Amino acid sequence: MNTVGIVMGSDSDWPVMKLAAEALAEFGVGFEADVVSAHRMPEEMIAYGAQAAGRGLKVIIAGAGGAAHLPGMLASVTPLPVIGVPVPLKYLDGMDSLLSIVQMPAGVPVATVAIGGARNAGLLAVRILASAEADLRAKMEEFQVALKEQAHAKGARLRAEAAELGG
Amino acid sequence: MNTVGIVMGSDSDWPVMKLAAEALAEFGVGFEADVVSAHRMPEEMIAYGAQAAGRGLKVIIAGAGGAAHLPGMLASVTPLPVIGVPVPLKYLDGMDSLLSIVQMPAGVPVATVAIGGARNAGLLAVRILASAEADLRAKMEEFQVALKEQAHAKGARLRAEAAELGG
Amino acid sequence: MNTVGIVMGSDSDWPVMKLAAEALAEFGVGFEADVVSAHRMPEEMIAYGAQAAGRGLKVIIAGAGGAAHLPGMLASVTPLPVIGVPVPLKYLDGMDSLLSIVQMPAGVPVATVAIGGARNAGLLAVRILASAEADLRAKMEEFQVALKEQAHAKGARLRAEAAELGG
Amino acid sequence: MNTVGIVMGSDSDWPVMKLAAEALAEFGVGFEADVVSAHRMPEEMIAYGAQAAGRGLKVIIAGAGGAAHLPGMLASVTPLPVIGVPVPLKYLDGMDSLLSIVQMPAGVPVATVAIGGARNAGLLAVRILASAEADLRAKMEEFQVALKEQAHAKGARLRAEAAELGG
Amino acid sequence: MNTVGIVMGSDSDWPVMKLAAEALAEFGVGFEADVVSAHRMPEEMIAYGAQAAGRGLKVIIAGAGGAAHLPGMLASVTPLPVIGVPVPLKYLDGMDSLLSIVQMPAGVPVATVAIGGARNAGLLAVRILASAEADLRAKMEEFQVALKEQAHAKGARLRAEAAELGG
Amino acid sequence: MNTVGIVMGSDSDWPVMKLAAEALAEFGVGFEADVVSAHRMPEEMIAYGAQAAGRGLKVIIAGAGGAAHLPGMLASVTPLPVIGVPVPLKYLDGMDSLLSIVQMPAGVPVATVAIGGARNAGLLAVRILASAEADLRAKMEEFQVALKEQAHAKGARLRAEAAELGG
Amino acid sequence: MNTVGIVMGSDSDWPVMKLAAEALAEFGVGFEADVVSAHRMPEEMIAYGAQAAGRGLKVIIAGAGGAAHLPGMLASVTPLPVIGVPVPLKYLDGMDSLLSIVQMPAGVPVATVAIGGARNAGLLAVRILASAEADLRAKMEEFQVALKEQAHAKGARLRAEAAELGG
Amino acid sequence: MNTVGIVMGSDSDWPVMKLAAEALAEFGVGFEADVVSAHRMPEEMIAYGAQAAGRGLKVIIAGAGGAAHLPGMLASVTPLPVIGVPVPLKYLDGMDSLLSIVQMPAGVPVATVAIGGARNAGLLAVRILASAEADLRAKMEEFQVALKEQAHAKGARLRAEAAELGG
Repeated sequence: MNTVGIVMGSDSDWPVMKLAAEALAEFGVGFEADVVSAHRMPEEMIAYGAQAAGRGLKVIIAGAGGAAHLPGMLASVTPLPVIGVPVPLKYLDGMDSLLSIVQMPAGVPVATVAIGGARNAGLLAVRILASAEADLRAKMEEFQVALKEQAHAKGARLRAEAAELGG
Repeated sequence: MNTVGIVMGSDSDWPVMKLAAEALAEFGVGFEADVVSAHRMPEEMIAYGAQAAGRGLKVIIAGAGGAAHLPGMLASVTPLPVIGVPVPLKYLDGMDSLLSIVQMPAGVPVATVAIGGARNAGLLAVRILASAEADLRAKMEEFQVALKEQAHAKGARLRAEAAELGG
Repeated sequence: MNTVGIVMGSDSDWPVMKLAAEALAEFGVGFEADVVSAHRMPEEMIAYGAQAAGRGLKVIIAGAGGAAHLPGMLASVTPLPVIGVPVPLKYLDGMDSLLSIVQMPAGVPVATVAIGGARNAGLLAVRILASAEADLRAKMEEFQVALKEQAHAKGARLRAEAAELGG
Repeated sequence: MNTVGIVMGSDSDWPVMKLAAEALAEFGVGFEADVVSAHRMPEEMIAYGAQAAGRGLKVIIAGAGGAAHLPGMLASVTPLPVIGVPVPLKYLDGMDSLLSIVQMPAGVPVATVAIGGARNAGLLAVRILASAEADLRAKMEEFQVALKEQAHAKGARLRAEAAELGG
Repeated sequence: MNTVGIVMGSDSDWPVMKLAAEALAEFGVGFEADVVSAHRMPEEMIAYGAQAAGRGLKVIIAGAGGAAHLPGMLASVTPLPVIGVPVPLKYLDGMDSLLSIVQMPAGVPVATVAIGGARNAGLLAVRILASAEADLRAKMEEFQVALKEQAHAKGARLRAEAAELGG
Repeated sequence: MNTVGIVMGSDSDWPVMKLAAEALAEFGVGFEADVVSAHRMPEEMIAYGAQAAGRGLKVIIAGAGGAAHLPGMLASVTPLPVIGVPVPLKYLDGMDSLLSIVQMPAGVPVATVAIGGARNAGLLAVRILASAEADLRAKMEEFQVALKEQAHAKGARLRAEAAELGG
Repeated sequence: MNTVGIVMGSDSDWPVMKLAAEALAEFGVGFEADVVSAHRMPEEMIAYGAQAAGRGLKVIIAGAGGAAHLPGMLASVTPLPVIGVPVPLKYLDGMDSLLSIVQMPAGVPVATVAIGGARNAGLLAVRILASAEADLRAKMEEFQVALKEQAHAKGARLRAEAAELGG
Repeated sequence: MNTVGIVMGSDSDWPVMKLAAEALAEFGVGFEADVVSAHRMPEEMIAYGAQAAGRGLKVIIAGAGGAAHLPGMLASVTPLPVIGVPVPLKYLDGMDSLLSIVQMPAGVPVATVAIGGARNAGLLAVRILASAEADLRAKMEEFQVALKEQAHAKGARLRAEAAELGG
């Protein structure tokens, strides 16, 4: 069953948001992806949020840019945790997207990740699900070990390269 | 009949937003004011916007702070012009409010005024209404003459004060 | 008759500002476009603003970049609603343009749209005119329905693409 | 059993972070609170994170200001979801804290809330736990209804006050 | 004869702008001060600038805050050097004022000083006048020597105070 | 005789600073250009400033980027007006350069122009010199008329182009 | 013998910079403190830097605000390590001071600490000296142990306080 | 013996950080370079810092981007001076990296250099070592003389080029 819903205001956000989907797929977590625009289809957006928990979703990941209202609006109509991904637009390097998502008023939280950080949104969803699933948590721990090993391998190559410089 | 709706996410915004109401009152423009929270009562917010034109409103003024979603969300469900007032919160001097309101995606405009600039929101609503009402436009022109005369009077006092400094 | 005046400080702003013209043309709203520079032809700029209402214009759209004075200066000499478009220059991503336009003092409002958001300036002008014209308002409502349908179509394509990822 | 760990770099952050604790207490979620400084006791900080899941914690809330390293460092040694609260210091209004927490590299997410937004950190922890506990989710839904009712009550008072202004 | 015109948009800027007047008075440079608002009396503002050189002024100092258009607009109608003082308003610490003044397009320069830096505006006017007046330049050199002596005196006191700390 | 000194910290600034030289050449104002680095040749920099007035210079134009100390340091050792040009570097779009130049302490002013605004630095130097030379001031007035005529010509072309869009 | 020179542009910086002196005193490191203004006494400033190493100083700590040129200018005339302290002024929260100090061009480094971070400047000077003095390094290690113990004590108090909240 | 350790969170930082290595090589200072990631291998990172002094390192240079925790975390486990290099990422031009590194709390200093300023990090390490080694200090003084001569040569070329423009 799909437990994570990945939504965005436009399919132009997909090249960024796809990284969330790929992270979930790596962990075998089922997900759905859809265009749910706060500004172009507000009633459907409200309905999506209101029905999400009843449909079996456990976490929502929402990406948006500029005056990025989608994550916060979904958080207002669902009791599920909502993860917001600030998508950078042509100007301002995503600072507008970040502030529009993270600065939510008391009462309605959005779990915000880095500008363009959709991969981390996927990984955060895995951690949230893993909080209640021992198997998934074990996978996350393996993932963290793999991260470390990759960093070690990079270090070995770098030490060799630096040695040539006289280091 | 009330032709302008002034809404805000919380009554804590009223000390700022009241200035919009006062400007409308100066021009004899009828208005209503209400708490319509995008994050705490999203369905009612959608309903407010969707019904605004049918109820006879011509312009909506919406104030919000931080991740300020109210103006943009209302603009997505009404064909009326929506004026957004960035209300400054405790941190960031209203820069988050400004960007959350002004950086709307193509298709759904919000007419944004200065940070804390609720008086100008009221005056902009008057200009919008006056665009189709000759009497109201004449009042706006009188208002602009009065602004000029006040500035002249200030100048007279300042020249006197500066003269004492040796100017 | 032309009811919207689109002005900018230099023809180098036209690639951005043209989007306002195109939006108006989509709605069948007559417009004029001209170079009216606050800094290079200040007297003509003042004259343009002072005569705009008398010439039958209902709304002015003004684009400017950097120390962007055109929208605010026009607003000071006309009772019409003035929409300001912050045009981004080579540096600062339009933040200077935005602040120069939106931070107007109490008394003289400018309806500011997003950085580079000229299309929304056109749509905001339509909303302002539609506030007093039932036919135009109906067109705006149709436009909003069309926006929604486009978003739905994008969603269908995205769901298909995401399904291939394992979602 | 305590399921949420609330940690901060110094007890001077407690007046902000206490709001997270209060939110958890409102929902009957057990928590612990402690000083765990990334910079003054790094080994203990690493140990805290590494042992958190084993001790039965499900979520960690970490507050920090300035060069705010605590949330990200904890996230690097635990598979649990880590919520970061940017605590504003004397200068920069918390912008440094926000960026230091939210801009994590791919691989190690931190769920960031608003500057000074510790109450929302607590509510986000509840949502995360509620994602797997039907009872807690029902409580969150009741909480959201209560938020709405409070907003309605504020609206009633505001309508009365605005009516006196002539609205 | 008065050779420097000090103007500002409102008498509320006078507490800041007075420092320019005092600096000129210290050097015996004649000045006038007036309220000349770009937004409230645009025609008079244009006239002020256009007539300034003919009336014998050599330099104009203009202070403004927020969407600060006065210095740039005056520079567009006079061949005189115009010095702009960014006056900080309640929000944004004068960053909006600074960008609105300094980011002028090629063709129309404004000599911008620090946020709130009206004293330096006066001193810059003295340097400009002194560029063509040997006596005034000598006074400026004396002033610079006096600055140095004051700094020396401060150093003597500080060395004594630091010695008590163990330095 | 050369009356304007154009200096910069490195010849890599010349592509920007050359625009100041060209503006001066257009007005027939003699100038010299040189590399005078505050950080790489501080004693020579001090000497350059200290001797500038004695060598017959009337105005100094200094360009610098990043931690841009050259304009302010020169201003501290000369009684001449110093114009600062913030040169943008690879990161931060020149905001660091702007603040390092414009935020001078009371006592030592720098006349700051826009980021990358070297042409305006040249034109400001002309205005400063013209403040005491009627001929040069007449040339500046002619220049301003020419600016206006160019803007008019651009407007004619734009009106034609817009007419094709339906305006 | 004094091995650290603490300098600042004005005695008004002393309340901030005193913290550097106190940190040095805690470690028994001899220091001198003086007013050395880049802008008011540039020749003496150059002399101070040029003679510092010869007089036996090992490290220079320089505090400055706004267009903060002192640390970088000193670094250009001494081979010693120079530590820069961005002193916050009335506006901009020290962001101008920080950028003016840290963004030095390649060739001339300044070791920059936090805005207002004079205590850390003192501690960094101790670390630099300790790099070559085993005794001083041992003291720094003891200091770090003490920091940890203070954090532990704060944690004990916080755990007690939190327990009362229900944690 | 290697006296400087150059570390970074990923080998993708090497193109920036290599400049530090090259600067050290120019001065004949031995160094090592390695990948030491605060977020991917936190225990090894702690170990690296804790053992650095014992292994004979005198200075650590750490580069990191975004939520840049490496320099500060190393500084918390070593008594050595740690130099932080803010590495710019795809968005925000390194402002997040700068603030995450420089805004350290009192007690744990990081010597921060410019965004992308790895060459200066190398030169600062040389100055720190030179503080206790007369030979190395003499080399730094020669280096500073060479910088000056290069600037002189650039000036000569620029004067020739400017002369062609009419200067």
